[in-house]
Amino acid sequence: MFISFEGTEGSGKTTQIKATYAALQEAGYDVLLTREPGGTTISDNIRSLLLDKPTGKQAMHPRTELLLFCASRAQLVNEVIVPYLDDGGIVLCDRYADSTLAYQGYGHGLPVDALRTILDFATGGLYPDLTVYLDLIPQKGLARRRLGQLKFGEDWNRLDDMELAFHERVYAGYQTIISGDEKRFLRVDADHDADTVQKNLLAKLIPALPSLA
Amino acid sequence: MFISFEGTEGSGKTTQIKATYAALQEAGYDVLLTREPGGTTISDNIRSLLLDKPTGKQAMHPRTELLLFCASRAQLVNEVIVPYLDDGGIVLCDRYADSTLAYQGYGHGLPVDALRTILDFATGGLYPDLTVYLDLIPQKGLARRRLGQLKFGEDWNRLDDMELAFHERVYAGYQTIISGDEKRFLRVDADHDADTVQKNLLAKLIPALPSLA
Repeated sequence: MFISFEGTEGSGKTTQIKATYAALQEAGYDVLLTREPGGTTISDNIRSLLLDKPTGKQAMHPRTELLLFCASRAQLVNEVIVPYLDDGGIVLCDRYADSTLAYQGYGHGLPVDALRTILDFATGGLYPDLTVYLDLIPQKGLARRRLGQLKFGEDWNRLDDMELAFHERVYAGYQTIISGDEKRFLRVDADHDADTVQKNLLAKLIPALPSLA
Repeated sequence: MFISFEGTEGSGKTTQIKATYAALQEAGYDVLLTREPGGTTISDNIRSLLLDKPTGKQAMHPRTELLLFCASRAQLVNEVIVPYLDDGGIVLCDRYADSTLAYQGYGHGLPVDALRTILDFATGGLYPDLTVYLDLIPQKGLARRRLGQLKFGEDWNRLDDMELAFHERVYAGYQTIISGDEKRFLRVDADHDADTVQKNLLAKLIPALPSLA
C-alpha cells in the first residue's frame, strides 16, 4: 500500500508523517518512510544539484528544476518504492506527484497538462492508493512557520520567502486536485496541536490499512 | 538560425559539425557550436551524473536517464541557445530532440508520444530551423566505428556494445521522423570520405543560410 502525505507550508506534514511512521511500526506494520527528492544514491546526487544550484546569470531554469525533480522521482519509484510494495510493505512518502502539480503547476504556472504527462512518465503510472492531506489555510500555515512552532524538512524551505499569493494558488490547486480524485484523499484538519492532529489522522488512516497478518 | 546535426553511430556527425563550424566561422558567420548533454555549468553537472551513474542493483533507470538528459537540454536551451539566437547568431547543436526520439523512443522503446511532450516542455517549443542528417546505414556505421577510422565524441560510446538490431531501430526511427517533417531536414549521404561529405554538406547548407551583412 502506497500512501503519500501532502499539504501546504506549515501544515505539519513532516511532523505528522514521522509520527505516523512510528505508530505504524509500533503496530507491527512493515513500513518504509521516504521523501522527495532523495532516497537513493542517484536521487541524493540530483538533490545536491537542486540545493547547490547557482543563482544570478546562471540560475537554474524552472523547467530544468522540474525535470530534475522528476528524474529523482523516477529513480526513487523504480529502485525503492516499487520493490517495497511488491514485497507487501507499506510505503509512506513525504510529498509526491500532487506536490509537483500544486507547487510547480498551480503555484508557479508551469503547464499542468504537460506536468501530468511528465509525472506519468517518471512514475511509470504509479500513484498513491491513499493520500493524507493536511488541511490548513495558508495564512495560518505561514504564521505557524514564522513563529517556529513546528519543525520542517529542508526540501521546500526556499519557498519560505514567497508571498501569500503564491501559497493561496497552491492551496487552491490542491483543492482542484482533490475534487478530481476525492476517493484517494484522507483530508485531516491541521488547525489543531500536533498530538490532536495525529490522533485524528490515525483514526481515519488505520481503518483504511490492510489488516495485520 | 538554429541548426542541429543528427545521425546514427559512425555517420561522422561530430567530425562534420566541427568542420562545418570552422567553415562558417571562416566565412564570417557569428556561430556557436554546442553539444548535449553539457554546455552550461548546470548541464555539465548533470552530464557528470549521467556518466558516473552506478551499475548493478543501483543502476540508473532509463526514465531517470531520459529526464536528466531533458533537464540538461532545458538548461542549455534557456541559458545558451535562446540568448544566442536572440542576438542573431547561428547555433550548431550536435544532437538535439530528434536523437531523444530516435534513440530512447524508437531504439529503447520509451513511449514516443510522452517523449514528444517532455521535449516540448524541456525546450519550451524551440526546435531547429534546419537539421543536417548524415545518412549511413547501421552496418556501415558500426563497421567504421570498429575500424576506428573516425574520431567521435564521448557522449554515446556506451551504445557501442549494443546490437545492430538496436541501431536498425534507431535508423528506422530517424526515417519516420524525417518523413513527418521533410522540409526541416538536409539529408547528406555519409557513405564517402570525410572531405567529400563536408563538401556536399556545405553545398547544401550554405544556400540555406541567411546572407552575410
